[in-house]
Amino acid sequence: MTTENDRKGRVLAAVDREFENALERLLTLVKIPSISTDPAHARNCRQAADWLTDLLTDLGFVAKTHETDGHPVVVGHSGGAHQRMLFYGHYDVQPADPLDLWVRPPFEADIIDAPYGKAIHGRGASDDKGQFMTFLEACRAWKQATGTLPEGLVVMLEGEEECGSISLAPFLEEHQDMLRADLALVCDTGLHASRQPAIMTSLRGLLSEEITITGPAIDLHSGLYGGLAVNPLRVLSSVLASLHDKANRVMIPGFYRDVRPTDHTRVETWEMLNFDTGRFLGKVGLAAPVNEEGFSALEALWSRPTCEINGMTGGYTGDGFKTVLPSQASAKISFRLVADQDPDHLRERFRAFVMTQIPSDCTVNFTAYAGEKACTMDTTSPLFEASLEELNEEWQALPVMTGSGGSIPVTTMFREILGMNSLLTGFSRGDDAIHSPNEKYSLDNFRKGIRSWARILSRAEELETL
Amino acid sequence: MTTENDRKGRVLAAVDREFENALERLLTLVKIPSISTDPAHARNCRQAADWLTDLLTDLGFVAKTHETDGHPVVVGHSGGAHQRMLFYGHYDVQPADPLDLWVRPPFEADIIDAPYGKAIHGRGASDDKGQFMTFLEACRAWKQATGTLPEGLVVMLEGEEECGSISLAPFLEEHQDMLRADLALVCDTGLHASRQPAIMTSLRGLLSEEITITGPAIDLHSGLYGGLAVNPLRVLSSVLASLHDKANRVMIPGFYRDVRPTDHTRVETWEMLNFDTGRFLGKVGLAAPVNEEGFSALEALWSRPTCEINGMTGGYTGDGFKTVLPSQASAKISFRLVADQDPDHLRERFRAFVMTQIPSDCTVNFTAYAGEKACTMDTTSPLFEASLEELNEEWQALPVMTGSGGSIPVTTMFREILGMNSLLTGFSRGDDAIHSPNEKYSLDNFRKGIRSWARILSRAEELETL
Repeated sequence: MTTENDRKGRVLAAVDREFENALERLLTLVKIPSISTDPAHARNCRQAADWLTDLLTDLGFVAKTHETDGHPVVVGHSGGAHQRMLFYGHYDVQPADPLDLWVRPPFEADIIDAPYGKAIHGRGASDDKGQFMTFLEACRAWKQATGTLPEGLVVMLEGEEECGSISLAPFLEEHQDMLRADLALVCDTGLHASRQPAIMTSLRGLLSEEITITGPAIDLHSGLYGGLAVNPLRVLSSVLASLHDKANRVMIPGFYRDVRPTDHTRVETWEMLNFDTGRFLGKVGLAAPVNEEGFSALEALWSRPTCEINGMTGGYTGDGFKTVLPSQASAKISFRLVADQDPDHLRERFRAFVMTQIPSDCTVNFTAYAGEKACTMDTTSPLFEASLEELNEEWQALPVMTGSGGSIPVTTMFREILGMNSLLTGFSRGDDAIHSPNEKYSLDNFRKGIRSWARILSRAEELETL
Repeated sequence: MTTENDRKGRVLAAVDREFENALERLLTLVKIPSISTDPAHARNCRQAADWLTDLLTDLGFVAKTHETDGHPVVVGHSGGAHQRMLFYGHYDVQPADPLDLWVRPPFEADIIDAPYGKAIHGRGASDDKGQFMTFLEACRAWKQATGTLPEGLVVMLEGEEECGSISLAPFLEEHQDMLRADLALVCDTGLHASRQPAIMTSLRGLLSEEITITGPAIDLHSGLYGGLAVNPLRVLSSVLASLHDKANRVMIPGFYRDVRPTDHTRVETWEMLNFDTGRFLGKVGLAAPVNEEGFSALEALWSRPTCEINGMTGGYTGDGFKTVLPSQASAKISFRLVADQDPDHLRERFRAFVMTQIPSDCTVNFTAYAGEKACTMDTTSPLFEASLEELNEEWQALPVMTGSGGSIPVTTMFREILGMNSLLTGFSRGDDAIHSPNEKYSLDNFRKGIRSWARILSRAEELETL
């Protein structure tokens, strides 16, 4: 243990010594406008990928920019007989619009003063360039301190996370042996409540559908036909209103069949988080939670399935008024899934539920969008406990195991395609403004993030199994 | 009588002689995109008004484009000691969207082949440009045949009929002496079942409201907030679904209080029309009527009040999917009123009904649009009988007295502000697609319509009182 601790100390010292250079490298990367959803920036996505392949190669990884049908994937191997950990990050970023709301240009990578201290300002500074560079800089410090990279590391950096990761599943399928490791590490999440380090242990799945109801063959005059002809907007409203009961439960028959009670110890952990519902809702101008009856706010957000209407349109929606009885009405509806809920199965149940409510004079058309299962991590994996201890020491705050109401499809792909469990930790703050103007990343969190990974790598070296 | 008949014959001959020129004038007018509800087309509304003032002046009317707070009103006087008849039409038109459904551009005024023969294609070709031009062309023929215009005619053409006629009531109030006549003539209605000439003797009133429900201060991520934050689209759907029960009755408390049973003789007249519900709905691709339980189809359309959703929007409505939990959702809702139902009173009842359903975390904003009472005409007025005879002769089909589910607010204003009864007749067909893509007006109906007015003007000249 003394040797191990000595090594950890030397690596952490190397992190601090190298920090100014690490910052320069991150700023260089943020300056590349690798917006994946915009074809005009495809060139910049490739530029970011090649820059990262060069960086990994310099560090001693055997690295390559791999082609896909979309943007390239960067993969690097540190070598060794056995692949122990696959680290995942994404080099692509969200579009920067609306540009006029940025206090500095989004791709100049300035250092600014935030309320809490210095921060790196720019699109991708936090999501995910700043975040994944913490891991690569930890590897660099490791090499500087020990002369070699940690053995059995695979680094995979994708370029389509912000536009649906279309190419990722086929890429994982095709390169299973190249990528499969004992455990995946993902750095694309944040601190809890911007204060406590966190490991995210569950993510909800997602099922999205669009429905379009057609009644009359053409738009009708509501005076000449109103009272006799079916109105698709009325039918749609009625269908949408039937999706929940007054206790905010989803009314689709069988919807809860594959929802298991949340693991008792998880719920207990969440209770200790003292989640402040009033504060959480207050930030967006709300006060009254509408969670499913019988469940706490965090349970509702992290471990209960939901149904939300995300968009709805029909008839005349411009300025003024038009007394039209429209031919069509449509809505976009999504479900957050938990536990064993199967998106394909529920899609069929949802469609059947809608069909029972469509009058004989209407037809309904369904369009399938996302369908991903929920993902719950196996927290008994030994590196989880070790990581919590190291995060505690680095941040001097009790780390927490959290859930999330959102979906990170890559963890589901890792589990389903490569049979891998994922350890998700990251160092962004709630006010990093990811996906918004003036995205930033705390300079101090960047440094502590590198140190956190240095510590976790050190503990992983000690463990027989991860 | 011989002299009168001679004159009628000469006027009808002038109609036929002048018809090609009349058509050219109508096509010129249809080409002006005078969409009143869209501020971008205010210029075109003025252009149409000025074009009509010039046309009336050329015909020998003393005419002027009158300013209002909205679009102008055109008024012309034929002169004479006593104002006998006020003719009403509207030069504004509905928006043309969705544009991609038009087989020709909506404002090119093409002549097309309809199943029944040639038709004028374009927005406003029927409603109401083609219709009111029948009267102006009848006046022109009269002048050509007799050397003068009929005495005591007032022509009033408004520009806000399709957006609520906001300025009209104040205009009538302000110019009572300029406008008041013995009887109003209105040409904004159609043939019965596209075959028989008709005089419309009752119209439903109209109440229109827009409601906007606001929940969160900003659009939220449905994964991070879904299950806890109120969703305005859900609230809106629930409100809209609550407006009717399963028997298609409107559920707003007190909604039916001022609805009286329809006059027995009117209902008997309607029964004799042998209204074919299946055929009526079949033309627009429907088969199953949704009328209020306990009432026939014609009663439902002509003498029962309704509630319809005319438009609804909220959240993401573009291509693809966005898992947004939107800040706002809104709907446009209108009611057709009958008998003594008071729009102001019902507007308050509607708002109160909605308010009871708005959760504490949402606010609701109401925008008032139209509010007009229903209107029943006095059919004992002598010109009614004479007009039925002339319509019979011109169309060689028994004319009928009908009701309508639509609203022509001006008839209520004429009654309430100017104490005038209205005679409504018009020549549009059920398949003219007014308010829909590919609006058209039968060329033959345009000609017969002009001839019908020439005949009615001729009979009016003979009558002591109208």
